[in-house]
Amino acid sequence: MVVSLRLPSLSSLFLPSVSRRSPAVLRRHHHHILRTPVFAASFSAQTTVSETDDRVDTQKSNRVQDQAVTPRSKDFNAWYLDVIEQAELADYGPVRGTMVIRPYGYAIWEAIQDYLNVKFKETGHSNMYFPQFIPYSFIEKEASHVEGFSPELAVVTIGGGKELEEKLVVRPTSETIVNHMFTQWIHSYRDLPLMVNQWANVTRWEMRTKPFVRTLEFLWQEGHTAHATPEEAEKEAIQMIDVYTKFAYEQTAMPVIAGRKSKVETFAGAVKTYTIEAMMGDRKALQAGTSHNLGQNFSRAFGTQFTDESGLRQHVWQTSWAVSTRFVGGIIMTHGDDTGLMLPPKIAPIQVVIIPIWKKDDDRAVVLNAASSVKEALHAAGIKVKLDDSDQRTPGWKFNFWEMKGVPLRIEIGPRDVSSQSVVVSRRDVPGKQGKVFGISMEPSVLEAYIKDKLDEIQSSLLEKAKSFRDSNIVDVSSYDELKVAISQGKWARGPWSAGDKEELRVKEETGATIRCFPFEQPRGIKSCLMTGNPAEEVAIFAKSY
Amino acid sequence: MVVSLRLPSLSSLFLPSVSRRSPAVLRRHHHHILRTPVFAASFSAQTTVSETDDRVDTQKSNRVQDQAVTPRSKDFNAWYLDVIEQAELADYGPVRGTMVIRPYGYAIWEAIQDYLNVKFKETGHSNMYFPQFIPYSFIEKEASHVEGFSPELAVVTIGGGKELEEKLVVRPTSETIVNHMFTQWIHSYRDLPLMVNQWANVTRWEMRTKPFVRTLEFLWQEGHTAHATPEEAEKEAIQMIDVYTKFAYEQTAMPVIAGRKSKVETFAGAVKTYTIEAMMGDRKALQAGTSHNLGQNFSRAFGTQFTDESGLRQHVWQTSWAVSTRFVGGIIMTHGDDTGLMLPPKIAPIQVVIIPIWKKDDDRAVVLNAASSVKEALHAAGIKVKLDDSDQRTPGWKFNFWEMKGVPLRIEIGPRDVSSQSVVVSRRDVPGKQGKVFGISMEPSVLEAYIKDKLDEIQSSLLEKAKSFRDSNIVDVSSYDELKVAISQGKWARGPWSAGDKEELRVKEETGATIRCFPFEQPRGIKSCLMTGNPAEEVAIFAKSY
Repeated sequence: MVVSLRLPSLSSLFLPSVSRRSPAVLRRHHHHILRTPVFAASFSAQTTVSETDDRVDTQKSNRVQDQAVTPRSKDFNAWYLDVIEQAELADYGPVRGTMVIRPYGYAIWEAIQDYLNVKFKETGHSNMYFPQFIPYSFIEKEASHVEGFSPELAVVTIGGGKELEEKLVVRPTSETIVNHMFTQWIHSYRDLPLMVNQWANVTRWEMRTKPFVRTLEFLWQEGHTAHATPEEAEKEAIQMIDVYTKFAYEQTAMPVIAGRKSKVETFAGAVKTYTIEAMMGDRKALQAGTSHNLGQNFSRAFGTQFTDESGLRQHVWQTSWAVSTRFVGGIIMTHGDDTGLMLPPKIAPIQVVIIPIWKKDDDRAVVLNAASSVKEALHAAGIKVKLDDSDQRTPGWKFNFWEMKGVPLRIEIGPRDVSSQSVVVSRRDVPGKQGKVFGISMEPSVLEAYIKDKLDEIQSSLLEKAKSFRDSNIVDVSSYDELKVAISQGKWARGPWSAGDKEELRVKEETGATIRCFPFEQPRGIKSCLMTGNPAEEVAIFAKSY
Repeated sequence: MVVSLRLPSLSSLFLPSVSRRSPAVLRRHHHHILRTPVFAASFSAQTTVSETDDRVDTQKSNRVQDQAVTPRSKDFNAWYLDVIEQAELADYGPVRGTMVIRPYGYAIWEAIQDYLNVKFKETGHSNMYFPQFIPYSFIEKEASHVEGFSPELAVVTIGGGKELEEKLVVRPTSETIVNHMFTQWIHSYRDLPLMVNQWANVTRWEMRTKPFVRTLEFLWQEGHTAHATPEEAEKEAIQMIDVYTKFAYEQTAMPVIAGRKSKVETFAGAVKTYTIEAMMGDRKALQAGTSHNLGQNFSRAFGTQFTDESGLRQHVWQTSWAVSTRFVGGIIMTHGDDTGLMLPPKIAPIQVVIIPIWKKDDDRAVVLNAASSVKEALHAAGIKVKLDDSDQRTPGWKFNFWEMKGVPLRIEIGPRDVSSQSVVVSRRDVPGKQGKVFGISMEPSVLEAYIKDKLDEIQSSLLEKAKSFRDSNIVDVSSYDELKVAISQGKWARGPWSAGDKEELRVKEETGATIRCFPFEQPRGIKSCLMTGNPAEEVAIFAKSY
C-alpha cells in the first residue's frame, strides 16, 4: 500500500516568520533549552542548486541541512524536539502535556498498527472496545493497582451540566473495566481462553512530559486475556512479549533486550511483568513494550470465576500487554542523526522519494514523465513511493526536506538520466557520495529488484548499527563500584543480582539507574550478587531510563 | 482477509442460568420493556437433529430459532436489543449509557473503517490525532457551537489529584481544537487545502441512550478540512457526503437518501449540513452520516487566516464530516429479521460458515477433512470463511447460531456430500428450502465462482429489498393534513416546503416528525409549500427519527 501523504503545512515551516515561532511552540514546556534559530537563518535564503551534473551538489546542501537541527551530540533532548518539529511528526496540544500527532507521525503509528494487528489476530485475539469512563470504585478494588495509578488519574466530575454521584476515571489502563465485563461473560471452562485486544487512547496525569515518550494522553493497544490455568497465562504473557520483540527487531530495527522486570518495577497489579528495553541514541533505556502475567489478582478483586471441567469454581488466570505511541519516540531516538529522522524501510510511510531535476523549461515535461513512470512501476511492485513534483521548491530544498523526514531511499532523475534511461539512487543511512549510486537502469524489473534489495540492505544495516552501538555500551560488572562507574559513563551495567528491594532502591538513589530487566538471555556459570556477594541466579541490567 | 473470531463467551449465553440473566443485563436501562425469557426456555433443551438426509431438519430448527428473539413486528426495540445481545454485538458498560463493543460488533466497525479509510486517503486526506481534552474556553468561542454542545459535555475537573485551574471538556467533536491547531499551521495559500481525518472516541452526555444508535461514548471518524475558497469547501462537503452515500449503498446495502438539512437541523456551527438518512425496519429515520460546510464560522472564532496569492489575509473556509458506530445500528435495523442479524456480504466479518455434519464417529474425519479443504479453497479465493468444527454443539444449534449472527451463506457438508464431492449451500436471506441448493460441486474453481456469485446476488438482493421497502413507505404529500396522515401511519412524508423555522417546529410538536432533509434528488415542476401554499423551490422529507 502506498501512503500518499498531504503535507500542506510544511512549506510554511520554512518561512522565516514561522521558523522563528515554531521552536517556541515546541519548547514551551521546556524552558531550560535555549537555542538560536539557526534553522530559520539558513533556510530563509533558498539553497542554491548547482546542476553541473544535472543534479544538486549534495555536499553543499548537506552542509545547510547540518544546521537544521541541534546536533545530537550537543543536546540530545533539543535534537529530539527539533526532529519532531521539523519532520512534522507532532505538535503540542493546548492542554499541558498533550500532543497532536501530525500526519507523518501518525503514519508511522499506522505502520505499527498494521503489523501488530495482524499478529494479534494470528495469535487468536479479537479486537473489541471497552468504554473509557471507569467508575472510581473500580480502581480501588485491586490494592496495588490503586496505589500505582491513583496519583495519575484524570477525573470527570460533571456530566450533562450536573455534578455526578460517582466520579468517573478516564481510563489509565483497562484491567478493572475488563474484569468487570469478563465476570459477566465467563462462566465455564468452555468460555476460556478469552483473548481480546483494543486500540484506544489512555490518560495518565504525568508531570514531566515529552512528545511520544510520555504524554498526558497517548494511543496504545492493550491486550487482555483470561485462562483456565496459570501455565496458560504464563505462556500467553511470554508469547506476547515475543511478538513485541520480533516486531522491534524485524520491523523497527531496534535490538531491544527482552526480560523480566524486578519486583519493584512490576506493573501495579501484576504478578510478573515482561518488558522489552531499547537503548536510545543517548544510551538511556526506553521501556518499549510490556506484557504482564496478572495471576489471579484482578479475578479475585472482581470475582471473575469459571466452573472447571470437574465442576469446581475457580478464579481465572490473566494477562495484559501493551505497546503505545511511545514506540514512535523509540524509533526516532534509535536511528535519527544530525540530518534528522532515519526510518527503517519496513516502518517508513514513504520508502522511496523521487526528486525530478530540471533547469530548462524544455526538460520539465520529459523529466516529469520519466519520474511518473518510475513511480508507477515501483508503486505496482508494492513499494511505498512518493514523487515530489512540486514547482515551489528547488531540488536542494527537497533533498534536505526528505532527509529530515528519514525516507530511506531517494531517486534523482534529471535530463541526462532520461537520455541514458537510468536514475541515481541515494541512501539516507550512508551520507554523501558514498551512499549514492549512478546509472541504475530505469527498466522496471531491474529498478524494482535493485530498490527492494537496497531497502532490505538498509533495514539490516540499521539493525546491525543499533546492535553494535548497544553492545558497545553494555558493561559487565561484578561489583557495585563497577556498576557506578558504568552508569556514570552513561552506559548500561549488567551484573549478577540477588539483593532485595531496598538495595535496588539504593542503587536508584545513588546512581539514577534502575533495573531495566533480568534478560531472558542469561550467561552460564556460577554468579554472585554484585551488591551482596551472595549467590545469584541471574544477571540484571541497570540503566538510566526515560 | 479472513477474520477468525474467537467467540468464547457464546456457549455460555445459551446455558439456562445465563439466559435468564442476560436480558436483565441488557435491559437494565429499559425498565419499560417486559418480556418472558422464551429464549432461555427454548434453548435449554438442545435442538434435536434429524439427519434423514445427512443434515438438519431446517424447518424444525427454524421454528426453535423463531422464538429466540422478540418478533420484530411485535416490539421493534425489544427485537433490536435481543439481536444485539444474542448475536453478541455489544453489551452495556458499567457507566450509564456506555457500551462495550464485543468482537463481532467491532468486526463490523472494522469493515466500515477498512473501506472508508481507503476512500479518505484516495480523496487526499491524511489521518492524524488530536488530543481529546479541550480547554473549556475553546468551546465557548463559537456561539452556536457552545449552545449546541454545552448541555452534553463531560468535564474533567481533577487531574493528578488536584483541582484543575481550567476545566477540560472531553471532546464531543473536535472543530475547536482542530482550529486552534490549524491557526498555527496555516499561513499562506500554499498550506491549503489542509485535509485531515481522525478515528477517535467522542463523548456526549446523552440522556436517552440505545446501543450503537446513541451512547454516551462512541467511536467515529471526523474529517476536518480548510480551503482557500468557499467553492472548494462546498465541493469538499459534497464530495464527502457522496463518499458516504456510495458506501451506504454499495457496502451496507442501505438505500439512504442524501440531502441538505434544514436550518433548524443544521450542525451547531455549520453553514450547511448534508446528511444521509436511512429508513430503519420500523420506518423511523436514522441520520447515518453528515458532512458540514462550516464556512468561516470557526476560522473567524479562532483567527485561522492565510495570506492569499495577492498578499491579502483571509479566513479559511472549512468542512467537517463524520460517521460513527451508529452505522452498525443502522445495518442491524435495516436488514435484520426475526431470525436475527442479516449482514450484507461486503460488510460481513464472516461471509460463509461451513458446518460439518456427521452422525457416526467413522464419518467424522472424512467430513472434517473435506470441510477443511473447502475452507482453504474459499479462503485462498479471498472469501471470509469460518469452519465451525466444534464438537460441543449440534449442527442444528450451529445453524441457528450463525443465522442469528447474520452470516450470508452457510455450507453444509455431510458424509453423502463427501461421497458425491458436493456441498449444500443455504442463503441467510431466503429462509427454508427455497434458499437451499443441493449438489454444488466441491471442485474449488466451481465452488468459488458459485459462492462469489451468490454473495453478489445477496448483496444486490438486500439493497433491492430495502429500496422497495423504503419507496413503499414514502408518501408524496401536498398539504399539512396529508403529511399528518402519512406520519401517523408511521411513514415518511415528502412534500414541497418553503415555510419558516416556526412552522417546522410546529410540525415537530404536533406530529413528532422533523425535516430529515431536502433531498438532492428533486422532482421537477412548480411546487407550492404544503404548509403555506407559497411557492416552494424544493420538497423536504419529514419523518420520525432516532
